[in-house]
Amino acid sequence: MTTVTDQHPKEDADIYFETHAAPTNLALVASALNTFLTHHRVAGRRVVLVSSGGTMVPLENQTVRFIDNFSAGTRGATSAEYFLEMGYAVIFLHRQFSLLPYSRHYSHSTNCFLDFLSEWGRIGEDDDAPEGTGDGDVVVRRKYKAQMLDVLRKYRRANEQKLLYLLPFTTVSSYLFYLREVATQMQIFGSEGLFYLAAAVSDFFVPPSRMAEHKIQSGDLPDPLAEDSTPATTKSDSKGGRKLMIDLDPVPKFLKRLVERWAPDGMIVSFKLETDPSILLQKCHMALNRYQHNLVIGNLLATRKYEVVFVSPDGEEWIRVPQAKDGETQIEIESEIVPKVVDMHERIIKEKKAAKRA
Amino acid sequence: MTTVTDQHPKEDADIYFETHAAPTNLALVASALNTFLTHHRVAGRRVVLVSSGGTMVPLENQTVRFIDNFSAGTRGATSAEYFLEMGYAVIFLHRQFSLLPYSRHYSHSTNCFLDFLSEWGRIGEDDDAPEGTGDGDVVVRRKYKAQMLDVLRKYRRANEQKLLYLLPFTTVSSYLFYLREVATQMQIFGSEGLFYLAAAVSDFFVPPSRMAEHKIQSGDLPDPLAEDSTPATTKSDSKGGRKLMIDLDPVPKFLKRLVERWAPDGMIVSFKLETDPSILLQKCHMALNRYQHNLVIGNLLATRKYEVVFVSPDGEEWIRVPQAKDGETQIEIESEIVPKVVDMHERIIKEKKAAKRA
Repeated sequence: MTTVTDQHPKEDADIYFETHAAPTNLALVASALNTFLTHHRVAGRRVVLVSSGGTMVPLENQTVRFIDNFSAGTRGATSAEYFLEMGYAVIFLHRQFSLLPYSRHYSHSTNCFLDFLSEWGRIGEDDDAPEGTGDGDVVVRRKYKAQMLDVLRKYRRANEQKLLYLLPFTTVSSYLFYLREVATQMQIFGSEGLFYLAAAVSDFFVPPSRMAEHKIQSGDLPDPLAEDSTPATTKSDSKGGRKLMIDLDPVPKFLKRLVERWAPDGMIVSFKLETDPSILLQKCHMALNRYQHNLVIGNLLATRKYEVVFVSPDGEEWIRVPQAKDGETQIEIESEIVPKVVDMHERIIKEKKAAKRA
Repeated sequence: MTTVTDQHPKEDADIYFETHAAPTNLALVASALNTFLTHHRVAGRRVVLVSSGGTMVPLENQTVRFIDNFSAGTRGATSAEYFLEMGYAVIFLHRQFSLLPYSRHYSHSTNCFLDFLSEWGRIGEDDDAPEGTGDGDVVVRRKYKAQMLDVLRKYRRANEQKLLYLLPFTTVSSYLFYLREVATQMQIFGSEGLFYLAAAVSDFFVPPSRMAEHKIQSGDLPDPLAEDSTPATTKSDSKGGRKLMIDLDPVPKFLKRLVERWAPDGMIVSFKLETDPSILLQKCHMALNRYQHNLVIGNLLATRKYEVVFVSPDGEEWIRVPQAKDGETQIEIESEIVPKVVDMHERIIKEKKAAKRA
């Protein structure tokens, strides 16, 4: 774990860590990460941190209500699979219960895997269970088995070779503690470490000192919060109903901290999701200028599955895949994004090595 | 679909429906519901609406950020299974991607179903694939097959007998439109209709007239919202960072509308989730007094898996199951809750029938 060294003046980021409790399992995670990273360092493998899913911003200590960012985790989970195929070991820092590599192909609600299974005794009715299975066996139906076998084999390979480390978070604060831990441990990889930050991280949070302990009441009871300077209070509206007022502070800019201190030698890729096409490029360039990292991948909520823009010191480059028509399978744009990022990573590794020799 | 009749003065609930767009698929859903309900009415089956999961409150029209209520949908999904076992047809009105009956046993992140599968050619290594399967077949591993077969059979029965209608929602407004539709259509069941409202419905919303169109900016760009009276605006804090202020209106009390107009003859069960034990019972009694329905099931966030309290005109009754120790399987408290609710429902049906005869 890192501590703030004396040569740096205390900044908002330091205060953030000092005033938030670390995840209770942080020491265990740190130890498991150390094992994972050492193993792959010895094996000469590159490593990528893929962050994925949205961060939760609790409005109460005993959290019933929270602010969230839209993200099922599709970008992160899909990208992680392609990084694994390209030989990387992957730390998958993801929102708990968001999509995961491999199992994402069979979510419980769409493509429900129970629909893919058959019971031996029912062959007469289904006519698609493999022959030769015995009474009470449960088998994958014939028409689904080729695709499931492919997914299953990749999943097994990742597990058996210990290529994938799953690290779940829920709140924005647990995300930041884990990010710092992973990044500082990944320093042993130098330029061979890659950070692919696809998670949707909240810009705002409720400081612990102003957090309500219990569920905020909607006005049925005398407001227990009225005398506290809590971030969320209710007040009567003109009709006697109660309005909810929420007041959030900006999350310190941790990407700056990552670039400058936690991962000074790694390649860093951030994402920018917008809804307004007219500001997307401007926002990407502003992020790149502000943080001085390697690449911003911009995307719009409405078109994110078939176009993104790479904004780097080399300029802008749009990447597109055809938009699937009804009934067609959408080509995964991550199959284009990841190899391009890996190319850039290779170039950066070479440049850094050349610079060292010079 | 219902329309507001002239004899009722316009209330907040009416204004809510008039100022929110109905889900685009509402007509299709209404037609499918009609088929489902007619089928089970003819078959003499009772029907229960189970609502499940949290409602999303968007902060932007093109939604990146939203306020949410904590709920994985465990209570609803588990209860739905027990209602099916007790002979009810179930309309499962659930937050999209929350847990579903049957598939809930194998979420993609815990109990990942991929871990339960084996490939035929690997029997030598695993020694737990059934014998007799052929090359390339994917089968459920021996040690998991009994439990999965049980789940699969129940899932199949529910599908084949069309006992389960899955109706997903995302926002609080789509939830309310669907609830109104389901309830008014269920009037043909009279007292044989049951409403089991386990969803965590937001008390607050952002009126469409004050909704930001695009993602709210954190202050990198001149604030495009500054001149609007939007519900969420940013303002500079003392350090030049930007704070986010969110201002929400109270959601009209639709339970009142449900009890009085949409489902005057059905049995209605609501849930009350609190974090503070000292106010739980008081809140349950207040809800029962206010809405005059049949039952409030109270529960605390920390203990909801092993104790709940029934608050009804008959009084209070605690229901508890032992708390599982490490390694033990938790007895599902819904296996106690649902039969008790069904008992109450039977009593209410009898009383209403007796009252009609008298």
